[in-house]
Amino acid sequence: MKFEELQVGMKASTSKTITEADVLLFAGVSTDCNPLHISEVAAKKGMFGTRIAHGMLVASLISAVLGTKLPGEGTVYMGQTLKFRRPVFLGNCITATVEVAELNPERHIAILNTTCTNEEGVDVIVGQATVMLK
Amino acid sequence: MKFEELQVGMKASTSKTITEADVLLFAGVSTDCNPLHISEVAAKKGMFGTRIAHGMLVASLISAVLGTKLPGEGTVYMGQTLKFRRPVFLGNCITATVEVAELNPERHIAILNTTCTNEEGVDVIVGQATVMLK
Amino acid sequence: MKFEELQVGMKASTSKTITEADVLLFAGVSTDCNPLHISEVAAKKGMFGTRIAHGMLVASLISAVLGTKLPGEGTVYMGQTLKFRRPVFLGNCITATVEVAELNPERHIAILNTTCTNEEGVDVIVGQATVMLK
Amino acid sequence: MKFEELQVGMKASTSKTITEADVLLFAGVSTDCNPLHISEVAAKKGMFGTRIAHGMLVASLISAVLGTKLPGEGTVYMGQTLKFRRPVFLGNCITATVEVAELNPERHIAILNTTCTNEEGVDVIVGQATVMLK
Repeated sequence: MKFEELQVGMKASTSKTITEADVLLFAGVSTDCNPLHISEVAAKKGMFGTRIAHGMLVASLISAVLGTKLPGEGTVYMGQTLKFRRPVFLGNCITATVEVAELNPERHIAILNTTCTNEEGVDVIVGQATVMLK
Repeated sequence: MKFEELQVGMKASTSKTITEADVLLFAGVSTDCNPLHISEVAAKKGMFGTRIAHGMLVASLISAVLGTKLPGEGTVYMGQTLKFRRPVFLGNCITATVEVAELNPERHIAILNTTCTNEEGVDVIVGQATVMLK
Repeated sequence: MKFEELQVGMKASTSKTITEADVLLFAGVSTDCNPLHISEVAAKKGMFGTRIAHGMLVASLISAVLGTKLPGEGTVYMGQTLKFRRPVFLGNCITATVEVAELNPERHIAILNTTCTNEEGVDVIVGQATVMLK
Repeated sequence: MKFEELQVGMKASTSKTITEADVLLFAGVSTDCNPLHISEVAAKKGMFGTRIAHGMLVASLISAVLGTKLPGEGTVYMGQTLKFRRPVFLGNCITATVEVAELNPERHIAILNTTCTNEEGVDVIVGQATVMLK
């Protein structure tokens, strides 16, 4: 999408079930082998009582929406803020939604509100993305 | 690590070569199959001239340091800000460093400066993490 | 196997449980992140009511039998026809069977009937493979 | 896309570099551990002189275009024919293109020509897909 086509309020989203395999692969790629994510025995003793997905794994769905849907190809990802509100458990189905919040036509920069919700509609991550479109 | 053990200025880091396989697996996990990351033919026509790694893949190294080194086990990841400064190419070796910047003893919250640098010492991602330690 | 050893009616098969991890990895490799395969929330609203495996993932078992069992090493895979008859759900155990149907001794070409069935013996994919043996 | 929106001649494509990791993961998912794909020593003695990608791995890009671009979500994949014309080597960048060839409005069925080409524009797989749109 070209910068000129963007309008405040435009939205796009994608959804994905977060599986045990996702968590394993993400652990390998990120080197984040925190027992909270990969050991049921350790996680059982922790504050959530079972394994949870990596926050950054869940947040990566935001990047997928930005890069493939809105604004889509050609997007330069400049920044992201993330607040991890709730844990995501294995098997949760997460929907990442981005919504154009501000446009800076001089610099071709857009700010989007970015939210990840679980299947019950509860926000698990909120934040904002900053992107540039050449 | 317990909250009481944290001191402003403490540092930890981890480093990892970002491989073609990392990018492939991250694309699968995140559903971010942007051609810029997975198609050399498409990426050649883009602004970087070759495939680059997903920004969130690189940022995930920060989460690894926080969760396994400083503060380590028991860390509750509350938030993260990220500025993507430079592209990371396949084969780049990235070092993620976190440094305790502020401590809030009442709420057991710490703020850490988080930086990812490439093998030439150039910052590719900068930002801050907010964590809580029970 | 050498071409001369092949006889019409010869059969071989392999079977595999199609897991959630298979579907995730196949999505990454193929870039086919269709929500029907990876999002339980989206798939619930679709015609099958839950996530299904990629048809080509299931069909890839045929290639495994051809390349490793019958005719086995040295097989040159020339063509394949596929009819996707039934959905394959995560956890289904699929058996791929190939059976020599025709032999063309002049060109060293064999045609095999190829079938994938689920654990209830129902055909999920049918078709034919064309292979050459040097 | 709805069936009514489809027109003969419509085209869509996707491209992807086929990496060593793709071949490894596809071998795991498909159980096709043919030495031709995973052993450089064995493949060196074979007809191509080096490892090649699984034909079905390359063909899986077709499914990605059908399921996510044209016709996109809601597509029911009914059948596929494949002719494997040329080997695909690790590192080749493959473009899969689908083009609407025939429409059957009564049954809501479309036939698409499907082609995979390498970075030199040479066809490596040709064939046809049959899809239904409810």
